[in-house]
Amino acid sequence: MKPLRLTALVVALLAGAAVQAPWAADAPKPSATAADSQTWRDVSPDNLVLIETKYGTVAVELAPDFAPGHVARMRKLLHAHFYDGLTFYRVIDGFVAQGGADQDTSATADAPVNPELLKAWPPLKAEFDAALPKSAVFTPLGNPDLVAPQVGYVNGFAVGRDPKDGRAWLIQCPGVFAFARDNADDTATTEFYIVIGEAPRRLDRNLTAFGRVLSGMEYLQKLNRGNPDVDSGVIPDAAKRDPILHMILASDLPEKDRPHYQVMRTDSAAFAALLASKRKPAPEFYHRPGGFPNLDICGVSAPVRQSGN
Amino acid sequence: MKPLRLTALVVALLAGAAVQAPWAADAPKPSATAADSQTWRDVSPDNLVLIETKYGTVAVELAPDFAPGHVARMRKLLHAHFYDGLTFYRVIDGFVAQGGADQDTSATADAPVNPELLKAWPPLKAEFDAALPKSAVFTPLGNPDLVAPQVGYVNGFAVGRDPKDGRAWLIQCPGVFAFARDNADDTATTEFYIVIGEAPRRLDRNLTAFGRVLSGMEYLQKLNRGNPDVDSGVIPDAAKRDPILHMILASDLPEKDRPHYQVMRTDSAAFAALLASKRKPAPEFYHRPGGFPNLDICGVSAPVRQSGN
Repeated sequence: MKPLRLTALVVALLAGAAVQAPWAADAPKPSATAADSQTWRDVSPDNLVLIETKYGTVAVELAPDFAPGHVARMRKLLHAHFYDGLTFYRVIDGFVAQGGADQDTSATADAPVNPELLKAWPPLKAEFDAALPKSAVFTPLGNPDLVAPQVGYVNGFAVGRDPKDGRAWLIQCPGVFAFARDNADDTATTEFYIVIGEAPRRLDRNLTAFGRVLSGMEYLQKLNRGNPDVDSGVIPDAAKRDPILHMILASDLPEKDRPHYQVMRTDSAAFAALLASKRKPAPEFYHRPGGFPNLDICGVSAPVRQSGN
Repeated sequence: MKPLRLTALVVALLAGAAVQAPWAADAPKPSATAADSQTWRDVSPDNLVLIETKYGTVAVELAPDFAPGHVARMRKLLHAHFYDGLTFYRVIDGFVAQGGADQDTSATADAPVNPELLKAWPPLKAEFDAALPKSAVFTPLGNPDLVAPQVGYVNGFAVGRDPKDGRAWLIQCPGVFAFARDNADDTATTEFYIVIGEAPRRLDRNLTAFGRVLSGMEYLQKLNRGNPDVDSGVIPDAAKRDPILHMILASDLPEKDRPHYQVMRTDSAAFAALLASKRKPAPEFYHRPGGFPNLDICGVSAPVRQSGN
């Protein structure tokens, strides 16, 4: 009763239809042709954050053009080994994995802010959106969005843009890397979160997003969860909070130990072809006429690959 | 350097902003008022599938109005204990967890279909969409969608509808429960998949969806993953495929052993209030004017609760 053969067939054919994971999926295999640098760019070690969990290492690329103050803070926190040994203490399935600090379970929302922390890491000015440098190339997705006036890609990041004020921001897609904050805008200090579920677009331009996961989402998905109905999803038993074993900036590692990532250029012909293929996927499998003119900006991510040292 | 107090504050306040997990989140606490049955409906044990994994049990509600043939097949498969001891053999992060059958890793797409399987479980006629019974209440989401002409909810399921032909279908949101198929439409037999990432809307009306996860998405997220670039995400090492320990229909259990689930009625005032709150979330936290008039149909799911035996 084990459908071995049929299964192989079904798998192979559904695979042709697969909307693959945005991280590491859909990427052509590494090659070293002359055209390579037109299609791929190297991720700078100054922008590459490595979060080591017991399930595996999560790689995040920082986006300084979108939030220079937050990126500078993150680099300083990493230089200081701030996160090492802290935990993912608030993890809500389908929403976010939030990490950084041990959580006093007896603390309540009206507890006073730790003055020692604020002395070392004072609240940051919010960077919900940015005026991008002229050199930044915005590649439109090519269809409307339900939330933002315009959506597209800049340097591999999914971006919203408002032509009225010229501002741009990272969209809160799965894998976005951002800082939590208090009710007031300018209150983020050290707490980060990563979106692990259907894009919570209400967070767009309401929190400062300044990076995205390049690989390792599957490790974040394994993190122990809190109960969203109890204490906002904070995991009450500290022993059940998965630790951040190490969280480091690649440029703080000896050069020989740094992993190397490349992201497909979103202003390349290869990426344009990828978008086109998502609009007209395998016709032998998809039988709805007309294809899919309107894509979800969070459904197509710039492919990522690791290159050798 | 541990921001205990600040963390508590940040957590509590970001919580006010939380787009909570669609399953089990946002649900008012159980109560037994007279109005209760206007707000909640019981899930029939004939529609409740329990998938036991080593991480926990996943509960799925079947939707016979949308695909009666597939629901009948699933009930027969469950009566026969078809899935017990098989595995989640193809799991792609951000896309689907596919399960049911051991996979011969040497099999290729052109391998012949197992004739024994087809004898017992012949291919099903596709049920990509349905003419719903007159009694089915469609509650519109209340804003446009990027893919479907109309979107809304029927009995707690996220639904697309085409006014031109009157057909309706379950949308491929995270948690949707569906059958895989071969290239031809009428080829599904036993293989199921559950969406575990950003809604792959290209699968809408292209595969037969006939249920949704009510609870336990976090257990599916822990499943071992395949590599989408290798053999379509099939996990090559059979020992690394997480087993389906048991997969049963609740009505096949003794009454005393059945879990009881309730789903918020999507034609209730409570659900209308939930949609309204998503459009105008906590103003003390969200500072973008105008709220969020356009919601993602996969971003708001009907709340679920478990009730006592």
